[in-house]
Amino acid sequence: MPWDTPISNELEQVEARIRSSVVCEEHLLTDICYHVIGAGGKRIRPGVALLSHMAVGGRQSDDIINLAASFELIHSATLIHDDINDLGEIRRGREAAYKKYGVQKALIAGDFLFVRSFRLGGTWDGRVVQMVADAATAIAESEIVQSAHEFDRSVTRAICEKIIEGKTAKIIEAAAMVGAYLGKGSEDQLQKLGAYGLNLGMAFQIVDDILDVDGDESQLGKSKGIDFTDGKPTLPLMFAFKDPKSGRKLAKMFVKKEKTKHDVEEALRLVSKTDAVARSHKIAEEYKTKAIRNLKGIPDSVFKESLSQLADMVISRRK
Amino acid sequence: MPWDTPISNELEQVEARIRSSVVCEEHLLTDICYHVIGAGGKRIRPGVALLSHMAVGGRQSDDIINLAASFELIHSATLIHDDINDLGEIRRGREAAYKKYGVQKALIAGDFLFVRSFRLGGTWDGRVVQMVADAATAIAESEIVQSAHEFDRSVTRAICEKIIEGKTAKIIEAAAMVGAYLGKGSEDQLQKLGAYGLNLGMAFQIVDDILDVDGDESQLGKSKGIDFTDGKPTLPLMFAFKDPKSGRKLAKMFVKKEKTKHDVEEALRLVSKTDAVARSHKIAEEYKTKAIRNLKGIPDSVFKESLSQLADMVISRRK
Repeated sequence: MPWDTPISNELEQVEARIRSSVVCEEHLLTDICYHVIGAGGKRIRPGVALLSHMAVGGRQSDDIINLAASFELIHSATLIHDDINDLGEIRRGREAAYKKYGVQKALIAGDFLFVRSFRLGGTWDGRVVQMVADAATAIAESEIVQSAHEFDRSVTRAICEKIIEGKTAKIIEAAAMVGAYLGKGSEDQLQKLGAYGLNLGMAFQIVDDILDVDGDESQLGKSKGIDFTDGKPTLPLMFAFKDPKSGRKLAKMFVKKEKTKHDVEEALRLVSKTDAVARSHKIAEEYKTKAIRNLKGIPDSVFKESLSQLADMVISRRK
Repeated sequence: MPWDTPISNELEQVEARIRSSVVCEEHLLTDICYHVIGAGGKRIRPGVALLSHMAVGGRQSDDIINLAASFELIHSATLIHDDINDLGEIRRGREAAYKKYGVQKALIAGDFLFVRSFRLGGTWDGRVVQMVADAATAIAESEIVQSAHEFDRSVTRAICEKIIEGKTAKIIEAAAMVGAYLGKGSEDQLQKLGAYGLNLGMAFQIVDDILDVDGDESQLGKSKGIDFTDGKPTLPLMFAFKDPKSGRKLAKMFVKKEKTKHDVEEALRLVSKTDAVARSHKIAEEYKTKAIRNLKGIPDSVFKESLSQLADMVISRRK
């Protein structure tokens, strides 16, 4: 059974809410959003919000559907803006928005998605707004850390993990906590589910970074080797630079601003001969184990079971 | 007496709130925001929110200070992103953020400002959130309309006014309405002040567009001729294209994607010989008159007087 089966009905409502949220007078703006949203994606953020909500006994409500949808809108906004910044050409198997519609319109569409996400939050209380906004702040902060370490061959594991945390883990932590909060979970449940979300997010992003060196492009729906090309430090690349055999060569290739397609292919081939992927995978596994352990004390239910399954999927996924 | 004298104390608090809102772990992000915020600006949006609030008898509160600050944060976010899109080099007398810090970081700083503005809204009720978000949506929509009419020599007055409305007037309308709403103004007062804000915003933006053809760069704190260079239709340019003598020539120059500095200077010289500025100014005056008329029925006070003075300033300003 796929992880999201127990919430398939709610996820459908979230999907409809996402789509209706981006309808506006300028059809082109809606089209750009549909292009990004309609391309799919794993819907992990709304899924975690919904499952955490239900796992603490929360009932279906407009609020939780809005919340789940707003996390996906924020995520889509950051994807569009990320692609502008990184010149990523393919996203979710489709041409990146800025490639199809131009940088100017993609930039505006990203802003529009932020605003629409904000609009959905109209009925939340102050604590919810703060949790969501602080997680979104962490995304921006981590982009700054990331760009400060662009082309940095001496990047440390601590920096890599800090980037991952802000970029992905904190917003999933917020999704879990706020979902549980709206479900009237106890403070202890909020903390546990928040920790689950944070650890799940860490595992998720590490696997993402592994797939960027090791994945199958046709399955991924996006190009591979982007981090290496753009000089973005990730855990697997950091480990590869420490390899006694190819590390120095890889690090030297990494710091070059201009890389040919051939350079990147050669680099990925070299990385695959190191233990970088295995070491990164081990760390991702550790985060997954922590995430599942964080669920201890949450009452047994199909929803808790799904959260656990999601953690397994995040690790074993090839796309 | 300058228009903002009766609210100088509150505006100082807003200023402090704006600055504290953008403090975060990554100092570079805060620096970019300070670069944009610290360069000044007229603070029309917070000013209108505060004055409308006080004009209906609203008391000082954290809520109104947050609201006023959040309008300025949204405005600053759109300025940063606009400059990326338009390649504007100078903003408020300073180097544009993307020129100083790079496109990537400026893009992130704009997103960060949106998020921080959202965070300030944590205590608002649903209606406030909707009004603010709908006005912010209008900004994005109007950017799309504007870019659909880039280099369009046959643009109509209706389109030009639609662009102005979404870009500037609707957010000032929202500032006035929400300010009055938080001040517990009556529905009638909200409508009147909203209409004031909308008309004020129209007048303001028309004068802005006039200054882009007719202003003094050293006073403006930004380059002139940007709209012509970028092929952006504005009211004064639209009127200039209708001039029996230079209209055709100007329109032909306007549609050229690549323009030299000399082309632009020549164009502005030609525009100055038409009645385009005078006609545009007349329309701006009409909006100003409407704005002042909208204040009828609002109880007399120094704050109402200031709103009226602001309308005069908006028209007579040279920067």
